[in-house]
Amino acid sequence: MPSPSFRLEPLPGYTPTIGRLVGILLYTRKTTLAAVEGLSTAELDHLQDDSSNSIGALLAHIAAVERGYQCVTFEERPPSAREQAAWEPALTLGAEGRRLLRHEPLEHYVHELNEARRLTLEGLAARDDAWLERTLRAAPAMNAHWAWFHVAEDEINHRGQIRCLRARLGSAATHTRA
Amino acid sequence: MPSPSFRLEPLPGYTPTIGRLVGILLYTRKTTLAAVEGLSTAELDHLQDDSSNSIGALLAHIAAVERGYQCVTFEERPPSAREQAAWEPALTLGAEGRRLLRHEPLEHYVHELNEARRLTLEGLAARDDAWLERTLRAAPAMNAHWAWFHVAEDEINHRGQIRCLRARLGSAATHTRA
Repeated sequence: MPSPSFRLEPLPGYTPTIGRLVGILLYTRKTTLAAVEGLSTAELDHLQDDSSNSIGALLAHIAAVERGYQCVTFEERPPSAREQAAWEPALTLGAEGRRLLRHEPLEHYVHELNEARRLTLEGLAARDDAWLERTLRAAPAMNAHWAWFHVAEDEINHRGQIRCLRARLGSAATHTRA
Repeated sequence: MPSPSFRLEPLPGYTPTIGRLVGILLYTRKTTLAAVEGLSTAELDHLQDDSSNSIGALLAHIAAVERGYQCVTFEERPPSAREQAAWEPALTLGAEGRRLLRHEPLEHYVHELNEARRLTLEGLAARDDAWLERTLRAAPAMNAHWAWFHVAEDEINHRGQIRCLRARLGSAATHTRA
């Protein structure tokens, strides 16, 4: 796996435009993992207020969004009913996420993220820049390039929220642990 | 100005890779403006807690970051002392931002964002994909492509925070107005 850097440029193993996109995905993931490094299960489960998502639920969301876009882009189909049911609490967040996405250590979420990412990079390495620009049959309003940018965009959006939540964990984590 | 869409592809008026990047910048800005639509000055000034940034300060930050990267990429120089001083509260946020970035209506922030963006699009339209990949003299760790992705990335990060802050304005805005 190429290292994230402060450059976007073609990457070995990918066609040029896909390589630049992979640079975005890798850099984004690096910052997400940095934002959650060292968090305990209690901190990952903490709810800042009644309508908050926990940091753990946001990590599960990031992995589920990536899985969903693998179906839409690589397999050109919407998620199956079974997949949708499995990913629903993480995709939707809110009350169901608060109820179900809990009691897991950081390693659990990192494993989910790594497994999703491995398949994404395999899928992108097997495709080319012409594919990247094509309209998606399972989502005709978008092309594959936008879809994969959006996966990074959604992750960055939630990483911004994770940073805010983490900065407020001080008293919170103490409270959750008590 | 081309319309944002759910496609990333070459855009008229830009070289191909710059066009895809402009697609990211435009889509990102559209979502930021949607996230703050209709907010009052009191809501833009509201501080969620003692260490929060207001939504107005985050909008000022987004515009200041874009101005800063115009210096670094288009003019190949760091911001001047005068520019740095003018942008400092917005770039740094925190206590100075809380003190100084207040009492402005949404139109003020949108004007700042639009003016910054106009110069960005002019600068990108005047350059080509070879330029986009070049190392920046004023920031040798990065190339121009990463720098402009980072402008969008920072905006998306703060848009995520703005969405959280706005969702919690209900009681907050009432309190600020009281």
